Amino acid sequence: MLVEETQAQASSATAQAHALLQDRVVATYLIETAFSLEYAAEVIAGEQSCGTFVAVPGETAALKDRHGARVISIKPLGAVSAPSLEGATAPHSARVASRYERGEVTISFPFHNIGPSIPNLLTTVAGNLYELQQVSGLRLVDLDLPASFAKRYPGPAFGIEGTRRLAGVDGRPLIGTIIKPSIGLMPDEIRPLIRDLACAGLDFAKDDELNGNAPYAPLAERVAVVMDEINRAADKTGKKMMYAFNITGDVDDLRRGHDLVRDAGGTCVMVAINSVGFAGLSYLRQHCELPIHGHRAMYGALARYPMLGIGFTAYQKICRLAGVDHLHVSGLGSKFYQSDEEVSQSILDCLTPLYGDYRVMPAVSSAQWAGSAVDTYARTDTIDLLHLAGGGIIAHPGGIAEGVRSMQQGWEAAMAGIEIGDYAATHSELKAAIEKFVV
Amino acid sequence: MLVEETQAQASSATAQAHALLQDRVVATYLIETAFSLEYAAEVIAGEQSCGTFVAVPGETAALKDRHGARVISIKPLGAVSAPSLEGATAPHSARVASRYERGEVTISFPFHNIGPSIPNLLTTVAGNLYELQQVSGLRLVDLDLPASFAKRYPGPAFGIEGTRRLAGVDGRPLIGTIIKPSIGLMPDEIRPLIRDLACAGLDFAKDDELNGNAPYAPLAERVAVVMDEINRAADKTGKKMMYAFNITGDVDDLRRGHDLVRDAGGTCVMVAINSVGFAGLSYLRQHCELPIHGHRAMYGALARYPMLGIGFTAYQKICRLAGVDHLHVSGLGSKFYQSDEEVSQSILDCLTPLYGDYRVMPAVSSAQWAGSAVDTYARTDTIDLLHLAGGGIIAHPGGIAEGVRSMQQGWEAAMAGIEIGDYAATHSELKAAIEKFVV
Repeated sequence: MLVEETQAQASSATAQAHALLQDRVVATYLIETAFSLEYAAEVIAGEQSCGTFVAVPGETAALKDRHGARVISIKPLGAVSAPSLEGATAPHSARVASRYERGEVTISFPFHNIGPSIPNLLTTVAGNLYELQQVSGLRLVDLDLPASFAKRYPGPAFGIEGTRRLAGVDGRPLIGTIIKPSIGLMPDEIRPLIRDLACAGLDFAKDDELNGNAPYAPLAERVAVVMDEINRAADKTGKKMMYAFNITGDVDDLRRGHDLVRDAGGTCVMVAINSVGFAGLSYLRQHCELPIHGHRAMYGALARYPMLGIGFTAYQKICRLAGVDHLHVSGLGSKFYQSDEEVSQSILDCLTPLYGDYRVMPAVSSAQWAGSAVDTYARTDTIDLLHLAGGGIIAHPGGIAEGVRSMQQGWEAAMAGIEIGDYAATHSELKAAIEKFVV
Repeated sequence: MLVEETQAQASSATAQAHALLQDRVVATYLIETAFSLEYAAEVIAGEQSCGTFVAVPGETAALKDRHGARVISIKPLGAVSAPSLEGATAPHSARVASRYERGEVTISFPFHNIGPSIPNLLTTVAGNLYELQQVSGLRLVDLDLPASFAKRYPGPAFGIEGTRRLAGVDGRPLIGTIIKPSIGLMPDEIRPLIRDLACAGLDFAKDDELNGNAPYAPLAERVAVVMDEINRAADKTGKKMMYAFNITGDVDDLRRGHDLVRDAGGTCVMVAINSVGFAGLSYLRQHCELPIHGHRAMYGALARYPMLGIGFTAYQKICRLAGVDHLHVSGLGSKFYQSDEEVSQSILDCLTPLYGDYRVMPAVSSAQWAGSAVDTYARTDTIDLLHLAGGGIIAHPGGIAEGVRSMQQGWEAAMAGIEIGDYAATHSELKAAIEKFVV
């Protein structure tokens, strides 16, 4: 039925294969299985390349050699007595087993199966894998992508350096806030708040992720009011606060929102990455003349169960490739589920080189206040971050200007290695913050 | 600091609120918490509307009334002794509890917080909820959306009726296959396979989700070869097989891929919904002149753990709104993790009316063969589905034409209520399928 492979065709295919196979996508998974790790790894490799549930004509050795995924390494990580996920099978068609092996499995896929496309990459390295009965746990934990991806996707247009340049901040983290209440302020109610924030010398402010182009306060109206106040403050103080306008929406909305912000003199746009999807994000990057502040809302659905989904190390590489300049990582001591260890690692992930300088600025957020600087700096030893405090600035007992000052003082203390209580003795804004936020 | 509300403003705001609040988005969650269900529900409502971790100025009663999410109902579902997710807290700042309540919680959000935007809807009804420490489990299980969404999103352009019309199939399910091996066939190797499939009277065939616009066999080359064979067969037999070309890619790829397929006389395009994201999918729908075959690769990452993510009932509504015409639901007796009950419910979900006729054709797939018809029909009582058998057709011992015939016979038996073994006694293709695929 299929074209028969002649000797000549086969050897030409082999030569071609050698040329093509230099580039491979490497994916690392945490898996759990009632089978042997070796067997499960082969099932994963087969499912995401040439295989189906039964041998089919045309599945030749040459085809498998050219297009098959390959198991590179298997590292056993011990066993558990119950499956982490439902719907898993066990050897000999059993529904349960008494032992489920865990391991880290690394698999490579031919680049020429995929092409330089984030969507097709996702289908290959994640895709149907989560559905397999042969695993009772599967999480994509890391990715290593060939340079061909960097040719197609230019990555962050501004990154850390570009963001610092636009915000005019060196030698310390950018300090920022989120407009609160998250949603509900009318444009006229936002105006005095922005004025206070910008005049207080804040580096950065942003819309809440909930606040996109809502009918009660359309983006165009908010942009006009916010930029008017930011520009007025800049005229007075010489410092132009960076504001990340939430332009999350459909493809046309992204472009329209971006142009609106750019034309009003804005210096940042924000998108909820998972709400839009990677095709939308890449589209925005292609047309974008401003830093993209990447919010990871909904990432918890992909990540909170440790034996499922996509780990942050893999996730943030895709986000960086698609072109975000800032990426949310939660915060130490936050109101969210992540441990401080996980948040610290996420910060470091964002700062790990990828294709030269695809580094992005981690946006540290959620229940942050002046004192959060100490742990954050101690654990990560970096000042290349965007430290966002919503209530931690806006609800400071001395008002916004003192809230901003308290955040700066928190970082001064952290960077100088001075105990925060000691530093507060001579810095009243920090002292007031400690009294308010330490419960 | 904020504009003071005068009496007059307050009463005007109230009048406005009444007008605006007619439309609300209603979301239903399965939750688990160490706190009371009532408290957890209020935390969810607060997090996704006006709240932050501390009270802030401007959070007035009028604002909360106008923009707050509201808990509509709470249905207790019993308790468990251990948390389903990590990172959950318990009352009085404890890290663990001895009892975690489960319940179904329904919450409504003002439409005017969101606007008619799928991305902003996702940020609101899912978004940061998965991150909350106050829950040890959270899954979005259903959504009820106001009509304003239907004004913005036209839904499936073809749906069940349009697909049947284009494929020329009435009175039974569409029978289809997936080109296997999933990846690796060169255009010249696909040619005879397509010829055999189209000449065998198959209704539908599709690319594997792994096979997009791969460098080894670019979409343009595959479209040319596949449509050439389909058109030749149609000239001979009068029946034009529908072929879903996988155009998954970035926004520009989607448009280019669609135009390529349309210009070659193709009748269907396919996208991996989660790889592209909803903004990309809606963009495609806006420009699309062909049915969109929606593959749900990666959905398992959002769904396999029962106390996390997004349930299919909610998920498929968003897919339908965004405009897919066909939607994958796995298959009964599949190689994937879903139970037969879950697959049956997914089929019925796709067929449940939404905004009049936003129904989509469920694509039943994964380890399907002729015999799968019996259970599928018995459990769902519908013929409005696309029954896909990859190996089940291509690996049929009598070849493709017999494989197709066996699938048709499976449905004839199922619809006539004849035991499949009895029907096979007089139908040799079905008999051969049973001998091959019943293990």
